Amino acid sequence: MNCIVFEPDEVPAPTPAAVELRGRRARHVIQVLRAQPGQRVRVGILGGLLGHAVVASVSEEKVALESIELDTEPPAAIPVTLCVALPRPKSLRRVLHAATTLGVKRIVLMESWRVDKSYWQSPLLAPEAIHSVLRLGLEQAVDTILPTVEVKRRFRPFVEDEVPALIRDTTAVVAHPGAADSMPAEMPGPMTLFVGPDRGFTPFEIDLLASTGVSARCLGSRVLRVDEAVPALLGRLLPGSSGS
Amino acid sequence: MNCIVFEPDEVPAPTPAAVELRGRRARHVIQVLRAQPGQRVRVGILGGLLGHAVVASVSEEKVALESIELDTEPPAAIPVTLCVALPRPKSLRRVLHAATTLGVKRIVLMESWRVDKSYWQSPLLAPEAIHSVLRLGLEQAVDTILPTVEVKRRFRPFVEDEVPALIRDTTAVVAHPGAADSMPAEMPGPMTLFVGPDRGFTPFEIDLLASTGVSARCLGSRVLRVDEAVPALLGRLLPGSSGS
Repeated sequence: MNCIVFEPDEVPAPTPAAVELRGRRARHVIQVLRAQPGQRVRVGILGGLLGHAVVASVSEEKVALESIELDTEPPAAIPVTLCVALPRPKSLRRVLHAATTLGVKRIVLMESWRVDKSYWQSPLLAPEAIHSVLRLGLEQAVDTILPTVEVKRRFRPFVEDEVPALIRDTTAVVAHPGAADSMPAEMPGPMTLFVGPDRGFTPFEIDLLASTGVSARCLGSRVLRVDEAVPALLGRLLPGSSGS
Repeated sequence: MNCIVFEPDEVPAPTPAAVELRGRRARHVIQVLRAQPGQRVRVGILGGLLGHAVVASVSEEKVALESIELDTEPPAAIPVTLCVALPRPKSLRRVLHAATTLGVKRIVLMESWRVDKSYWQSPLLAPEAIHSVLRLGLEQAVDTILPTVEVKRRFRPFVEDEVPALIRDTTAVVAHPGAADSMPAEMPGPMTLFVGPDRGFTPFEIDLLASTGVSARCLGSRVLRVDEAVPALLGRLLPGSSGS
């Protein structure tokens, strides 16, 4: 946690003077940051500004923050919409965290032939469970803007009816080991990135995506696990010097 | 597991005709691949060639493979030496797996001020534990060439005495949030990539690395967890079309 991100309803006003933390974030400040009264910590409000606060007091399981100053815009988003075949739950958590940390603001979890049907029953798909993973990603990245997460349970209607509008005015690519062309790097403009399940999209799925204008691109000849492919691809696409 | 990788001592000859699997890999073939007799599976020999085998028989916890043909060179390595401050154990496992999967062949686990001393006691640092994670990475990536893993317990002697030779004839960069310049992409030539601990290298450490010729580069303005930074950075550095 590189930043304490408050929910808007946790703070008494848009620019609160003081806030009290309990639970996970208090324990983090106490045990990991080992914060002492007087120490400055980074804070932010979900959907709002970033800034700093001063630790007023630390007691067992409770941290009081004061002198909150919110004065910094959250960092730029990466201009990538990520459409990923629903991974197994353990991997889903990592994919959501990595995408959030790397600055993706729109995530689509989609069906694919090789997505195990049981994955759709994962408790991690509950909105509050997704929210808590996304917030951890924001706390890691020092950001306050949550990504949206959409769920598309039927492959063909999604690709045929929604993808054409989704990819409009973007460079649309699907990561596919064995594709003839390489995944580009440092994309200057908006992109839509499709990532299949661990065993890959089927040839039919790749063809259907291609028919809407999504090009298959490989990242070397290696087969990556989805939770490693997503940060590898996003790190590659991240624009150059504009990011900092 | 996209490829069954044999240890050289598991197979009776350099080009064995048949092999019997038990344990983890047999369970994978039975439960995940749901292989039936007659099915072709990808195989490889550690340090040697890749190829295919045919499932001869499947019984409880045991799989017999026959008609083994080894005819393909393993994929090209990524020309990056990865020097990473020893991460916490859970993260170390992911870093080793991701680096192996993405094709790194030399990994250095190094000291840094912000590496918790307890991490050096991790059972995961035992050579056989590292070996088993690396082999999982090769099985994922369909590769047979293990990376070497070196351990450097003292920061300053390592940087002052060994880094100059290590980085010779390579582009040497350290990933450092807040650096003025961006991390390059699609490097055509050999690189040495330094990655700090989750809380970053100290300014002293960055300066000492700089004094030997290692430039600080940022990947956007976001702060990434080490286990997400490593695949993000390697995916970015991966050369273009030559990879496939």
